[in-house]
Amino acid sequence: MPYFPDIERIRYEGPASDSPLAFRHYDADKIILGKPMREHLRMAACYWHTFVWPGSDVFGAGTFKRPWQHAGDPMELAIGKAQAAFEFFSKLGIDYYCFHDTDVAPEGNSLKEYRNHFAQMIDHLERHQEESGIKLLWGTANCFSNPRFAAGAASNPDPEVFACAAAQVFSAMNATQRLKGANYVLWGGREGYETLLNTDLKREREQLGRFMRMVVEHKYKIGFKGDLLIEPKPQEPTKHQYDYDSATVFGFLQQFGLEKEIKVNIEANHATLAGHSFHHEVATAVSLGIFGSIDANRGDPQNGWDTDQFPNSVEEMTLVTYEILKAGGFGNGGFNFDSKVRRQSLDETDLFHGHVGAMDVLALSLERAAAMVQNDQLQRLKDQRYAGWQQPFGQSVLAGDFNLQSLAEHAFANELNPQAVSGRQEMLENVVNRFIYR
Amino acid sequence: MPYFPDIERIRYEGPASDSPLAFRHYDADKIILGKPMREHLRMAACYWHTFVWPGSDVFGAGTFKRPWQHAGDPMELAIGKAQAAFEFFSKLGIDYYCFHDTDVAPEGNSLKEYRNHFAQMIDHLERHQEESGIKLLWGTANCFSNPRFAAGAASNPDPEVFACAAAQVFSAMNATQRLKGANYVLWGGREGYETLLNTDLKREREQLGRFMRMVVEHKYKIGFKGDLLIEPKPQEPTKHQYDYDSATVFGFLQQFGLEKEIKVNIEANHATLAGHSFHHEVATAVSLGIFGSIDANRGDPQNGWDTDQFPNSVEEMTLVTYEILKAGGFGNGGFNFDSKVRRQSLDETDLFHGHVGAMDVLALSLERAAAMVQNDQLQRLKDQRYAGWQQPFGQSVLAGDFNLQSLAEHAFANELNPQAVSGRQEMLENVVNRFIYR
Amino acid sequence: MPYFPDIERIRYEGPASDSPLAFRHYDADKIILGKPMREHLRMAACYWHTFVWPGSDVFGAGTFKRPWQHAGDPMELAIGKAQAAFEFFSKLGIDYYCFHDTDVAPEGNSLKEYRNHFAQMIDHLERHQEESGIKLLWGTANCFSNPRFAAGAASNPDPEVFACAAAQVFSAMNATQRLKGANYVLWGGREGYETLLNTDLKREREQLGRFMRMVVEHKYKIGFKGDLLIEPKPQEPTKHQYDYDSATVFGFLQQFGLEKEIKVNIEANHATLAGHSFHHEVATAVSLGIFGSIDANRGDPQNGWDTDQFPNSVEEMTLVTYEILKAGGFGNGGFNFDSKVRRQSLDETDLFHGHVGAMDVLALSLERAAAMVQNDQLQRLKDQRYAGWQQPFGQSVLAGDFNLQSLAEHAFANELNPQAVSGRQEMLENVVNRFIYR
Amino acid sequence: MPYFPDIERIRYEGPASDSPLAFRHYDADKIILGKPMREHLRMAACYWHTFVWPGSDVFGAGTFKRPWQHAGDPMELAIGKAQAAFEFFSKLGIDYYCFHDTDVAPEGNSLKEYRNHFAQMIDHLERHQEESGIKLLWGTANCFSNPRFAAGAASNPDPEVFACAAAQVFSAMNATQRLKGANYVLWGGREGYETLLNTDLKREREQLGRFMRMVVEHKYKIGFKGDLLIEPKPQEPTKHQYDYDSATVFGFLQQFGLEKEIKVNIEANHATLAGHSFHHEVATAVSLGIFGSIDANRGDPQNGWDTDQFPNSVEEMTLVTYEILKAGGFGNGGFNFDSKVRRQSLDETDLFHGHVGAMDVLALSLERAAAMVQNDQLQRLKDQRYAGWQQPFGQSVLAGDFNLQSLAEHAFANELNPQAVSGRQEMLENVVNRFIYR
Repeated sequence: MPYFPDIERIRYEGPASDSPLAFRHYDADKIILGKPMREHLRMAACYWHTFVWPGSDVFGAGTFKRPWQHAGDPMELAIGKAQAAFEFFSKLGIDYYCFHDTDVAPEGNSLKEYRNHFAQMIDHLERHQEESGIKLLWGTANCFSNPRFAAGAASNPDPEVFACAAAQVFSAMNATQRLKGANYVLWGGREGYETLLNTDLKREREQLGRFMRMVVEHKYKIGFKGDLLIEPKPQEPTKHQYDYDSATVFGFLQQFGLEKEIKVNIEANHATLAGHSFHHEVATAVSLGIFGSIDANRGDPQNGWDTDQFPNSVEEMTLVTYEILKAGGFGNGGFNFDSKVRRQSLDETDLFHGHVGAMDVLALSLERAAAMVQNDQLQRLKDQRYAGWQQPFGQSVLAGDFNLQSLAEHAFANELNPQAVSGRQEMLENVVNRFIYR
Repeated sequence: MPYFPDIERIRYEGPASDSPLAFRHYDADKIILGKPMREHLRMAACYWHTFVWPGSDVFGAGTFKRPWQHAGDPMELAIGKAQAAFEFFSKLGIDYYCFHDTDVAPEGNSLKEYRNHFAQMIDHLERHQEESGIKLLWGTANCFSNPRFAAGAASNPDPEVFACAAAQVFSAMNATQRLKGANYVLWGGREGYETLLNTDLKREREQLGRFMRMVVEHKYKIGFKGDLLIEPKPQEPTKHQYDYDSATVFGFLQQFGLEKEIKVNIEANHATLAGHSFHHEVATAVSLGIFGSIDANRGDPQNGWDTDQFPNSVEEMTLVTYEILKAGGFGNGGFNFDSKVRRQSLDETDLFHGHVGAMDVLALSLERAAAMVQNDQLQRLKDQRYAGWQQPFGQSVLAGDFNLQSLAEHAFANELNPQAVSGRQEMLENVVNRFIYR
Repeated sequence: MPYFPDIERIRYEGPASDSPLAFRHYDADKIILGKPMREHLRMAACYWHTFVWPGSDVFGAGTFKRPWQHAGDPMELAIGKAQAAFEFFSKLGIDYYCFHDTDVAPEGNSLKEYRNHFAQMIDHLERHQEESGIKLLWGTANCFSNPRFAAGAASNPDPEVFACAAAQVFSAMNATQRLKGANYVLWGGREGYETLLNTDLKREREQLGRFMRMVVEHKYKIGFKGDLLIEPKPQEPTKHQYDYDSATVFGFLQQFGLEKEIKVNIEANHATLAGHSFHHEVATAVSLGIFGSIDANRGDPQNGWDTDQFPNSVEEMTLVTYEILKAGGFGNGGFNFDSKVRRQSLDETDLFHGHVGAMDVLALSLERAAAMVQNDQLQRLKDQRYAGWQQPFGQSVLAGDFNLQSLAEHAFANELNPQAVSGRQEMLENVVNRFIYR
Repeated sequence: MPYFPDIERIRYEGPASDSPLAFRHYDADKIILGKPMREHLRMAACYWHTFVWPGSDVFGAGTFKRPWQHAGDPMELAIGKAQAAFEFFSKLGIDYYCFHDTDVAPEGNSLKEYRNHFAQMIDHLERHQEESGIKLLWGTANCFSNPRFAAGAASNPDPEVFACAAAQVFSAMNATQRLKGANYVLWGGREGYETLLNTDLKREREQLGRFMRMVVEHKYKIGFKGDLLIEPKPQEPTKHQYDYDSATVFGFLQQFGLEKEIKVNIEANHATLAGHSFHHEVATAVSLGIFGSIDANRGDPQNGWDTDQFPNSVEEMTLVTYEILKAGGFGNGGFNFDSKVRRQSLDETDLFHGHVGAMDVLALSLERAAAMVQNDQLQRLKDQRYAGWQQPFGQSVLAGDFNLQSLAEHAFANELNPQAVSGRQEMLENVVNRFIYR
């Protein structure tokens, strides 16, 4: 019996369509810059917001009455939830999904039950994947919800908690490997502090470094070919999280010699919370060589918590997609919709509205960004701007031919007096708009 | 003729004093933890806010009519300003000062004039230092006000601007060396971007890396014994500055192999703008081994620009000073008041009120923090909290005796089920208050 | 059997006490400005955070295992919880408490059950009050947690939801009256919008106006002598709440002719979220004549959600208490600790640490503020600053003797050229510190 | 001799145009919903950012070398500046402009000089208007830049400063009347406080109320037919400005009986600084009946100061324009570009790029919004959502047929149990995108 009996498979109907549940822009096999849209975008639905969250918030009880969310035997419910999930993925026509270990299997009352439940559910997921053709973009372990992780997982003051986290990450990495996941993600939701008064920053950082080394070694040991990804977030639930943003993660990775081993999974909403634009976080990660994947959603510019709304700005997403295309596109990464419908969006149909709109936004952004790449005026103007560094003087400065004194003497001797030139920001913004609104 | 004829040298009168211009807590030679207050605090007044700024803001003209600010020959004015400054430092009884090259000498119309003016003024400053005993905490170069730096100094698209910056930094480092400055600071006010649309992040970062290497080499070449310091700031005047915060600077330093060569000068207000507490920035820098010095001021928690107000919270400063004492105290660094009176505080006396209040706040904070260090309940509770990591299991995890699999198997086999314990935040906050309000 | 067997009644031991659970400053009957501390402060503990919340957050399950929180018959649990609460209040030595209807009684499955449960629990509370002498500072109704309130209570698009809210507020007002509550509070947690796309601002505002009128009429009908209070909050759980801040509430009250009937209950953390200082919100409400009561807690200056931490800044609270003393002190209002221990503070003792520390902070702030009032240098300086408005010219301007033209002509004719004078901010800040750190 | 010799009059070339200086969407006389685009949008360029600002910021000197900005006789410069401005307006093809008194005429050294200079310049402006057909959207007085206004204008502690402000506002209102301005604006840039320690909120509010009454009376006295507008801003240059946002201004207006006399001029960037979306501020003002005009620009979501960038988001502007169209369109108001090019945009051409891009954004937004209005699915869904309030029960509740008790009894008696329904936020967002991206 279907969980979404009233929903047909979502189809592409083109920009003129008035249908509330059709794609107007996402035409999965349409070729853009030599590759089908679907392969550019590698879009994934997430298990947690869409199938696990009951519509509760800090101030109120759950508003959802999803047919797969009711009282009953936890394993039976988990099995039904997996069926609902794959029915949803298939009807939506999305190619990938993502999960935490405890999203798909009940945690039970002991590590033994956890291991047992999780193993059974991996069988179910594997079967669903085979039957549907849906693939796993990434798996991860939830090391933040269980009360034992209140003071962190790898950064916990209690080494037994560290060991429990290891047990979960070990299990989730192995499951990801078996399900042919393209990446494995680590989100250190409670790896941070509530108060500096009880926290030893240096010690906790070293614990985290040790943990990450173990994870990297395990990747090689089991022959996992995907990417390892850390997901930056500045705070919430913690007062301060160690993986604040991409630049901070880069510093951490270098300290432990991991900058070639681990990349970042950038979430739009976490960029917002860190005081950055989403574009900034992506461009920064690209420039540091650690760009991996995207958690596609949007935050609220006025609200200071993780609203995880569906992306709906073609303006924002075009710039981000342009950046990704210029960086060569996703390797193993993709766009995971770490997005949730609002607490008031309590109809199952709303889950489709959220995803269909977001997939269209990404598809249109891809088209706009591809046009920008093809006629790459931005790049030409950028090259012009830095042209001086391609000249002999600029090259010799970069090559180290001058030291501070000889360069200073060069400036004095030649009475250098360079003048500012226009940065042309307004013209560049108009160029971008010309591509977005054709 | 004195510039502050109505002000006597500020004296310590003790907590009961009602005098508006006396120290109630700062008793320079009082011994705290075996060292005079003045040596703990190493306080400095800054040249720019106090002697250069005319009380203007973006919305209005200058309100100050300082006797050393009027029309006239630039060099004569600079000489008068230096006299005013040292009269002020002496009457205030502060041990150190800080300056930018262009604060103390008129920039002129060419690099030649710049060099000439600056050289003359260094003679004046040297003489004033000798006569007064006032010392230089640090010097720096202003590579952000001249229009040529609109698009950055070292990160400028024009290599000639890079060379001009080198000319200034070379001059300012040499001047600092000659004036026996304890540190040399680099604030990259315009090293950032206005828009990503015209910016090559990777290229600009490499330019910055090259510049910093040259600075480090020059330090060794001239035998400068002080510290080199980068001052993090997240934005303003830029949309985004590359030296966002301590953690970001740490990542940059590592990338260019400079993490042993350059430390950070942390400004309270810049922490606020970066979305961090001041305490966080100091504790982070200490934990990363790059803590250098402090720009003591305060931001406004509600306003999003650099208000640079005088520090006035003993609560905040006690925690920061505790952190510094625990780290062994300042080495070459100190507390520089990068603080300005409000635009409405247009009397010269207000400059004294600002500094006297701030010096008292630091002095009292030092006393409170010292008491916390002596009876170090915070440390004891922290040690208890992490005690598990001193036990054999914790030690072997950190030592690398387990890999992810063996640690996971250990957890499964022993059915580990660690429980959360209280983080005791409220109690710790009460302990702190017990020391602050004795 | 006691719920807090290891805790004795908290006693005043004076500033020198090292005991972690004694008052160092709160000496309930000590006379300050002619009135006992307890009567100045009118402190209350709240039911919801301390007795209802299980230590959960959006990212994780409850960490608390309070002895009164376990599976079982809801009414039996509610009765036990009330015993625990009054044992806590008594041992703490706090004079008041506050509650929501659904904190004290199980909501049940229908309005009938709700009414029945609530009525029974009011009997219990009345008995506890009589036995203990603890009084009710205010009651309120929770019209935000039940899923039916997802889109608001009085501002809901469904008039039946409005009616259900009326049923709860009616019940809670009557209960407050019976329990001799000093005030009745309305917090419109979901009176706001999630998206403007589905919201009719004008209509919802009128619904709110209608509801408030009904509440005011009911107050008179039942002869309730306390104050009605609206609690401003800018957002969370909503995207935007109509009762954004004090100034916004003032505009709303005037529109519906209620500015003499309803005051505000100002929460420190809500001020933070609205981009204001707590001091600002209190001073604004006082200046508008709508100051009522305080929800004493603190937010986190870096985190954008309602952390509801215990107040611990004497610096902040002294200024607020000074403002309240200057306004004549609380009438019916008081300091309610709408504060919660951290999720990691899972020991029952932590509840005491939180409250004891906060009560001491308020007590000390009262002492400091009282000293400021007695030697009211701030007031004298303020009076000096505005002295011109007491002169004939200022008085005639205010009296309306000039119109724009005649005043302009006066200025032109007299060639007015007033000069800015110092606002003396730094000196004033030093004056305040002199009182706080004596 | 022209000031912009290389610029031809900007022409509409249609969406396919590649020209960097042509309109792609703004076709001034194109009929939209029965009215030409130009009459819908009523766009204005501003004098201050475009002709007065030298490209300085707090950290650096001016970068611009506009041909009308150089040393010389102030009145001659003012006359040249006016020529440059009208050449610019004409070449741009914009219908309106706006100014402050001190933008167009040198302030001089006395009120007498001010009056004299201003009167002469009004003659010039009148002539330019007649010759060009350009109209005045609004005039205003700069009562914030002169040092005398450091502590406010109408709210100043010195009544003589109040009188000087009256002199300027009197002059600027009369000039606006003579130049047939459509509105008169009041921006109280320094009407706020720097510190509560020296501020009497109540007194300053009453001063402001008195001033506004005088302004209203003067409007009637001189027969000015346009609107009076207050421009809300939360802070900057002040710590807190009294005209924080639209809701706050509404409260102020009501207190002094002015809510029918004064409307608001909403600036996008000021909404951002107040923690609101621009859409929110417009929708709020409309719902309160005080919507007047728009200062069109954009802020930076990550930076906390007034960046006044040119609007470039069709997504944002479509929603705002939809709101305005639904409210019946502008009356006297319009879209004034209170926008400035970046400090690095130092070519005169950049002034055109900024305005042309922004005018196109508004034109396209108008087209998209008009389509939304024509097929008003949003309105239909909104009407459905509130349909219950049109039914007899809802109507009688609003009509006051119930009091709190009878409504509560109705709820209890009928065992009301209304259920939440979907707010359909995601679907509505998709509907909007369907109109924006056709």
